[in-house]
Amino acid sequence: TGGMWAPGPQRRAGLALAVAALALALALAAWQRRRRRCPVREVLFFPSPPSCTEALLAEAAGPGSAARPCPCPLPRGECSLSRLLRHLLSARRSLEICLFAFSSPQLGRAVRLLHRRGVRVRVVTDAQYMGLQGSQIGLLRQAGIQVRHDQENGYMHHKFAVVDGRVLITGSLNWTTQAIQNNRENVLVVEGAEYVKPFLDEFERIWEEYNPINYRFF
Amino acid sequence: TGGMWAPGPQRRAGLALAVAALALALALAAWQRRRRRCPVREVLFFPSPPSCTEALLAEAAGPGSAARPCPCPLPRGECSLSRLLRHLLSARRSLEICLFAFSSPQLGRAVRLLHRRGVRVRVVTDAQYMGLQGSQIGLLRQAGIQVRHDQENGYMHHKFAVVDGRVLITGSLNWTTQAIQNNRENVLVVEGAEYVKPFLDEFERIWEEYNPINYRFF
Repeated sequence: TGGMWAPGPQRRAGLALAVAALALALALAAWQRRRRRCPVREVLFFPSPPSCTEALLAEAAGPGSAARPCPCPLPRGECSLSRLLRHLLSARRSLEICLFAFSSPQLGRAVRLLHRRGVRVRVVTDAQYMGLQGSQIGLLRQAGIQVRHDQENGYMHHKFAVVDGRVLITGSLNWTTQAIQNNRENVLVVEGAEYVKPFLDEFERIWEEYNPINYRFF
Repeated sequence: TGGMWAPGPQRRAGLALAVAALALALALAAWQRRRRRCPVREVLFFPSPPSCTEALLAEAAGPGSAARPCPCPLPRGECSLSRLLRHLLSARRSLEICLFAFSSPQLGRAVRLLHRRGVRVRVVTDAQYMGLQGSQIGLLRQAGIQVRHDQENGYMHHKFAVVDGRVLITGSLNWTTQAIQNNRENVLVVEGAEYVKPFLDEFERIWEEYNPINYRFF
């Protein structure tokens, strides 16, 4: 004892300060990790007033396509529909959509645009609604997007989407112009595996169950 | 300098240790606060198999009422419907319900039970669905529960509830036996002001807007 590594008072103080600094750094890191884990959290309410989403969709389609401004008289401000579009258009790798009714031309255009950009898009929908006039499902299939539907008595009544396996979009809103412009609706946009995983698992379960090899033809 | 309060090496070490301990304590407290802030977080998927909720509802009605076991042959295990019922029946002070369609006898019974227990129950619903056969709205009103409805062309299509201003219950599920037993549906149960507040604000907005003094009679 008393050698080179003995804890002299100065060395003890330095050690304690180092421990304090380390503790602070760890606390800060943990806090930031927690903040980073849930950065997207937004609640959207509808009805959303009629608005022009041309610039938003053109910009997302790629450089050059946003050149000419839309001549329509609709307002261009941010609204619940534009927020929903922005969250969808943020997709870079994958988009799972599980939707009872899908007839909104703007949302349909956004989904086809993502497919063209190379995002892996998969859609699950309800067989009864799918065939109605105005449904976007036919256009999605024409564009080469995989769509599967139920063959059940009950409705496939979900209204959720998962962006890049990272962001969950869920609520009461069907993707129809009627619902967007006229109904009282909510959409919750939230990041975090604790929300995304159960919904993604549900999607995969339904996706497999609705595999066309399982369809029965009466 | 060199007086009683001069920072001798030992005192410096003690101070540094105290700082370290304080930092650790603060970090621990922050971590626990964050954990405590979101204790309820559950995702329920439907369809939920037909099940007997008699014992659950009788137990919630008060002591003594659960005496006789239900003779029905339905299974008694935990399921999505029983989980939803448990979250509702946990209400002690207030319950806001904002629901397009409400016809489930079990959920209707749970809501009337809470009203009898002194919970302040308020219901907002859709005018079109409210009058259909099987709706629980008439029974709720007979029991003395305040109900308000829209007078709009669009649907009041929300499907959410707030328990004690603390827990948000939201999703695709209308409270109907058809939806519970036959449809693919989701319900997210989540605690935390960041989720509850926007929905509670939306409820209060709608509640005021649907005040009967604003009804128009054509």
